[in-house]
Amino acid sequence: MMQENSINPFTVYFSLNNGLSDTKNPISRHLSDMKGMYYDNEAFDKMMENGNPLTYDFYDLEMPETDGDLAFGTSVTYPGKVGMEYFMTKGHFHTILDTAEVYYCIGGIGYMLMENPEGDWDIQVLTPGKAVYVPPRYAHRSINIGNEPFITFYTFRADAGHDYGTIETKGFRKLVLEQNGNPIVVDNPKWK
Amino acid sequence: MMQENSINPFTVYFSLNNGLSDTKNPISRHLSDMKGMYYDNEAFDKMMENGNPLTYDFYDLEMPETDGDLAFGTSVTYPGKVGMEYFMTKGHFHTILDTAEVYYCIGGIGYMLMENPEGDWDIQVLTPGKAVYVPPRYAHRSINIGNEPFITFYTFRADAGHDYGTIETKGFRKLVLEQNGNPIVVDNPKWK
Repeated sequence: MMQENSINPFTVYFSLNNGLSDTKNPISRHLSDMKGMYYDNEAFDKMMENGNPLTYDFYDLEMPETDGDLAFGTSVTYPGKVGMEYFMTKGHFHTILDTAEVYYCIGGIGYMLMENPEGDWDIQVLTPGKAVYVPPRYAHRSINIGNEPFITFYTFRADAGHDYGTIETKGFRKLVLEQNGNPIVVDNPKWK
Repeated sequence: MMQENSINPFTVYFSLNNGLSDTKNPISRHLSDMKGMYYDNEAFDKMMENGNPLTYDFYDLEMPETDGDLAFGTSVTYPGKVGMEYFMTKGHFHTILDTAEVYYCIGGIGYMLMENPEGDWDIQVLTPGKAVYVPPRYAHRSINIGNEPFITFYTFRADAGHDYGTIETKGFRKLVLEQNGNPIVVDNPKWK
């Protein structure tokens, strides 16, 4: 029996140069969408006075939300900082916590910051050609530590869902800041 | 509760230039591994007399086979032909038939040939930057229709499994042959 919401084979183009599709619109997160997520609220407010820069783009192709389907697309985190903190994605757990995600880096340099409810955390550096495995149960956030767009191609189970609320409330255990021109990983003093 | 066979985050490098990892060994399929899978047995035997060329490489990272984990890696199908038929992968169904796969092309030009048990078939051309969605239930085969390696990065549910036997016995409904320098898709007269 075919699943009721099964779909036909299809292709989508995501440029290996800038990560963007020529036919699909990304979901764009500007700085205003990130209110309260960066450590330095003062730097955030000051930056907002001078505009509302695009911080990252990603895609939601609205795949059938079954455990046999997959969601995929690109994530493009643009270079920049709020105070000393690098531009980053909100980061999220999957609603179905025991589901993994794979990211394949095709441009730029960045970190994948990860933590699970059991208290484990991890950070992996990504450069073009590096794939990172985000195991089941790990919240994950992309962080651009370079000067060009940090671009990844991601795939996850289409029914996994996104739990953004937990990170919005608690934050990640770790922050990635620039110090003397280099990224450092520090404890998040605001972590709940 | 953590799943018993859960694993930690990790990265693996797969070159965006040639698709190969610097730390993992690929599974290599030489022409001899493909006996009986090409249409023209005579051309196959003749080609084998002059050596046993490498036809494709892919990776098995031996991920935990749960429905929450993902398997991933690259597939590199090398250029060449057996008679008029382009070098290709064996192709397979997933043992858990209702599981999808995503391929993102990073090099070369090729086809993804697909068919399901219900009698639907499809073929999609892939060039760098194109992602193809192989929906649940679709057997899939990579075919190199160009002159350089056809390279894709793939992800699928780690417990999906590989059913090679069905294709080895029945073949695909369609063949991709070169005619006057161009690829054509024809019915497979040997299809059972």
